[in-house]
Amino acid sequence: MKVTVLQDIMSANDQIAEKNLEVLNRYNVLAVNIMSSPGSGKTSLILATIKELRDKFRMAVVEADIASTIDADKIINEGVPAIQINTAGQCHTDANMISSALVNLPLNEIDLMFLENVGNLVCPAEFKLGLQKSIMLLSVPEGDDKPFKYPLMFSTVDAVVISKMDYFPLSDFNLEQFENAVKGMNPKVKIFKVSAKTGEGLADWIKWLESQVKEI
Amino acid sequence: MKVTVLQDIMSANDQIAEKNLEVLNRYNVLAVNIMSSPGSGKTSLILATIKELRDKFRMAVVEADIASTIDADKIINEGVPAIQINTAGQCHTDANMISSALVNLPLNEIDLMFLENVGNLVCPAEFKLGLQKSIMLLSVPEGDDKPFKYPLMFSTVDAVVISKMDYFPLSDFNLEQFENAVKGMNPKVKIFKVSAKTGEGLADWIKWLESQVKEI
Repeated sequence: MKVTVLQDIMSANDQIAEKNLEVLNRYNVLAVNIMSSPGSGKTSLILATIKELRDKFRMAVVEADIASTIDADKIINEGVPAIQINTAGQCHTDANMISSALVNLPLNEIDLMFLENVGNLVCPAEFKLGLQKSIMLLSVPEGDDKPFKYPLMFSTVDAVVISKMDYFPLSDFNLEQFENAVKGMNPKVKIFKVSAKTGEGLADWIKWLESQVKEI
Repeated sequence: MKVTVLQDIMSANDQIAEKNLEVLNRYNVLAVNIMSSPGSGKTSLILATIKELRDKFRMAVVEADIASTIDADKIINEGVPAIQINTAGQCHTDANMISSALVNLPLNEIDLMFLENVGNLVCPAEFKLGLQKSIMLLSVPEGDDKPFKYPLMFSTVDAVVISKMDYFPLSDFNLEQFENAVKGMNPKVKIFKVSAKTGEGLADWIKWLESQVKEI
């Protein structure tokens, strides 16, 4: 006899994820799952993106953290609707948390939704959420060896944003080696080099995001 | 009737953790669990510490990663015994992994052992391992708001090492605010400010570590 408990758990999550995707597509909302280590600059990228796109798209943000509402507060200060999920110790968001957030958002008034996932390079990659796109940030100070240590994350995202490029001159980050490693695992991945602080590279990221919204 | 499955899992882990502690104490080995986000500089701190203490103590390192042996290779290049644990997707080390590593180390020839845990600010804090001390690194580029987002980690470690201080002049990291937040959660915690690259602050960290080895 086969033990199937874990499989059942995963498929319950996946079922809810499928429903989330249906709901998002029905309302023509592009939802982007943003993942990274703690402190790689997810909130800063979202804030910079809101400034660039606020005249073109109606946006909303779902913030997920173990605790606190620090990030949601920053988003609301920009006049953008934000929902905070406190995961109560859980190291990732699951489909059910997203489902609860979607119920609380005015989806017919939203074109583009960001999920800022819990800061973690492992667990968030393992759970389907039903969002159309997933991206990750890797900040320059974290170093260029991360694809080998966190292969699942790097091989499943649609785009990798190298963030904090303003630290690049001080670092020994090897861009070519990093890009080769990531493309080796994930040939279709888009790679962007961005500093939310100086604005470097933001234009390419924004252009890609716009094209993704238009495809929905 | 009460469901007790999760409780059983945890106590099995805790029992093995207790045995690990007994073994370490019996051999007078001080074992330090080093935790942080990915890319905060755990390996660099360990390498710098090996250089400072190699004439005083016999050291060994247990490296834990989802995948790869990049970090263990660096340690072995320094002539220090290293064991690599590949956690096969798991976001933390558990007591049983440590137990297996201890069996494979010449404990009677070791004074000081480091565990470099999986890069993750959430899950590693939840599992008892049986190591006498636990510390975490928080690198300057990650930002000073992390204690509020990862309270369990910050409130349970013996020491916090603020790493990559060489990035401090470029950052807006508020040291006073950060230290107050951490001390508020964890009044007995030691806080060190270190750059493994420039050597800044290493002396205080080394002095503390020496005093801990001597207490064993």
